Amino acid sequence: VSVSTVLQAYLQLEGEGLVETRPQSGHYVRSRERELPLEPLPTRPAPAPRPVTVSALVREVYAAARDPKVVPFGSSQLDPSLVPTARLGRAVSRLVREQPALTVQYDLPPGSPVLRQALARRSVTWGHALSPDDFVLTAGASEAVHLALLAVARPGDTVAIESPAYYGTLQCMEALGLKALEIPSHPRDGVQLDALEAALGRTKIAAVLLVPNFSNPLGSLMPDEAKEKLVGLLARHEVPLIEDDVYGDLHHGAHRPRVVQSFDRKGLVLLCGSFSKTLAAGYRVGWVAPGRYLERVELLKFAQSVATPTVLPLAIAELLRTGGYDRHLRSLRRHLAAQVLQVGSAIKRHFPEGTRVSRPQGGCLLWVELPGKADALQLFARARRERIGLVPGPLFSAQGRYANCLRLSCGFKLDARSEAALARLGQLAAMR
Amino acid sequence: VSVSTVLQAYLQLEGEGLVETRPQSGHYVRSRERELPLEPLPTRPAPAPRPVTVSALVREVYAAARDPKVVPFGSSQLDPSLVPTARLGRAVSRLVREQPALTVQYDLPPGSPVLRQALARRSVTWGHALSPDDFVLTAGASEAVHLALLAVARPGDTVAIESPAYYGTLQCMEALGLKALEIPSHPRDGVQLDALEAALGRTKIAAVLLVPNFSNPLGSLMPDEAKEKLVGLLARHEVPLIEDDVYGDLHHGAHRPRVVQSFDRKGLVLLCGSFSKTLAAGYRVGWVAPGRYLERVELLKFAQSVATPTVLPLAIAELLRTGGYDRHLRSLRRHLAAQVLQVGSAIKRHFPEGTRVSRPQGGCLLWVELPGKADALQLFARARRERIGLVPGPLFSAQGRYANCLRLSCGFKLDARSEAALARLGQLAAMR
Repeated sequence: VSVSTVLQAYLQLEGEGLVETRPQSGHYVRSRERELPLEPLPTRPAPAPRPVTVSALVREVYAAARDPKVVPFGSSQLDPSLVPTARLGRAVSRLVREQPALTVQYDLPPGSPVLRQALARRSVTWGHALSPDDFVLTAGASEAVHLALLAVARPGDTVAIESPAYYGTLQCMEALGLKALEIPSHPRDGVQLDALEAALGRTKIAAVLLVPNFSNPLGSLMPDEAKEKLVGLLARHEVPLIEDDVYGDLHHGAHRPRVVQSFDRKGLVLLCGSFSKTLAAGYRVGWVAPGRYLERVELLKFAQSVATPTVLPLAIAELLRTGGYDRHLRSLRRHLAAQVLQVGSAIKRHFPEGTRVSRPQGGCLLWVELPGKADALQLFARARRERIGLVPGPLFSAQGRYANCLRLSCGFKLDARSEAALARLGQLAAMR
Repeated sequence: VSVSTVLQAYLQLEGEGLVETRPQSGHYVRSRERELPLEPLPTRPAPAPRPVTVSALVREVYAAARDPKVVPFGSSQLDPSLVPTARLGRAVSRLVREQPALTVQYDLPPGSPVLRQALARRSVTWGHALSPDDFVLTAGASEAVHLALLAVARPGDTVAIESPAYYGTLQCMEALGLKALEIPSHPRDGVQLDALEAALGRTKIAAVLLVPNFSNPLGSLMPDEAKEKLVGLLARHEVPLIEDDVYGDLHHGAHRPRVVQSFDRKGLVLLCGSFSKTLAAGYRVGWVAPGRYLERVELLKFAQSVATPTVLPLAIAELLRTGGYDRHLRSLRRHLAAQVLQVGSAIKRHFPEGTRVSRPQGGCLLWVELPGKADALQLFARARRERIGLVPGPLFSAQGRYANCLRLSCGFKLDARSEAALARLGQLAAMR
């Protein structure tokens, strides 16, 4: 059909109230919304920095996730069938066969020029224009964030974060002896800039750390205007931003959101990313574009692990070079968007009345807020006995908040067993 | 021939003064010794802790080593022809083909049980008896040492090290804000225990960090009695030891030296190792057996990089399981021992009179002490222009010592070009 026919059809559907248009995102089927639970309200963490102590709990959750029989709503791994494992594997096989010297070489910081070139080319899709020299390759985005924190903060310093925030980042801050200042956040738009501005005026903050594109766990997306405003705010206070963009390529709508760093003119943003959420978590290939902190990050990377593996980044670079990555992303995004909707509507059917669920516009995570005095840690323990995975809410706060919340991952294709697990989880959530 | 014939032959050669026996090491051809330069004297660093600031220099040396045309006496990479690259490559290819799920999996700390089992079995050859549960897998020994330091020391703390000490460790200490207390060391026996004991009585020391087996750069080997005494000393002071054993498998003599941890009964030793010096630096596979600090190290590893790559440790585990590793080590050791002797005797022929060179009983590194007021940094700059690699001495000290020293790596097979480079290096060293 022609473009004009499609546009006509959209207009008609919109007129009938069946689809809606979201700016910079695309057309969405509106009727599904009626099947979805209410969204969570903006969060209201306490406005004081706190030392972080989540690691014992993280350890427990990870021990549970190690069980290969568990229904993987707790794990952020992708379904292998959603990833071009065979193509990547062939690239690896070819590299080890044709370049035996890779086995003994140290790929010293900043890391493989081939992959850094490929990343520089991709940065255009992020609304950006980085050069290969702007990057330092890392062992996934986790190492990137760790290095970025080491570069800009010292033990005892305060780092402002979203609330709720990814427990991996909290654990990293705990290991580095940093305090967390949780900033109120909106489940659609992310961190609340007025609250952040007030905090910057009130507290000495060494850095701000955010996941602006499809945050973990809320799935929120900062609008472009907010990103630009954020950059201005940080520039005025001369405070660096660590921007974790691991989910940016997983937009459910038509457009890839911009990175905050693309608005930055002062080199204050340290942009972190990886291929773990889109392609190959097992390869541990990530990067940081550390702005004005480039030299320091490069040295810290050297001190921390000297080099990255030689073969795996090159295999990924080949996929990027040959265009296979974009094709893969299109299909992956379609699957994840569908899985997120499916799980959301299953929650509406099976969970207690009054349960609220996020509506992420990207990624594969759902944030679930149970009604009343629900206890997510107790639910976690019960679900574990029945081999159903989930991540309890208190992991996402340095203040022990979100006792009535949980995160569910939708990176796996739903089947009869996982559908049944969701129904059972709803029953367990209703128990007192 | 029979064992008794060989023993007879050895006895006869020893009687004629052609070979000598070194305890726990084997028989050595004695006549070569006459072709070798004098050995360096024990070192005498200043007895006060110092902040570390080597990283700018390390950066420069690494920039030089990136030149693919450089004669690689500066690099600690192995010659690819000395490593079973094809066998490892086939293992990698099989794994990515047969286990596609490895692509998307996180190999969470403590890391692959298969490799940890293989390491536990190998620990018998270290005079030890570790269980798979004693290990945490890391990105090479560098990450292991970084994690070990994070586990036992805080910024501002003092760590006692050999002098000279590996610049990678110094850089790691710099990044972590640690002070270095350099302990006098002997080029054959390593750290001087009486000096260490005096330092422990005088200074608050958070940890001791040593390479007891074939240290970098001296190549020294602590005798077993010294290892046992060291463990007693540290136990009395309740001070942990970070033991870097990356070179232990590269003994030139008959016996693999024991690890210090095998004497420890209090869990005070954090043993670090890797396959980077013996097999596959490009795979970044290492480990730490952190004794009583196991839980803390596991959490730190999680915070620092979440996981290790999935495929590469399994490929190495396969080589260990099928016995190919021991066969490879025997051949590698023979080559390295020969290369070290060759370079040593070339230095005797080409370098200024009075040059002293270490005589390592393992590994592939030579420590060269130039006579008079030689300036290794100047020599480094001159050699760099002529594309000859070396590491200048001041990198190995937090006190800027060893201005007249350099480290040469012998991991590459000597050929006409590298022989000529050594001769030229001798000329450059003689220039004032």
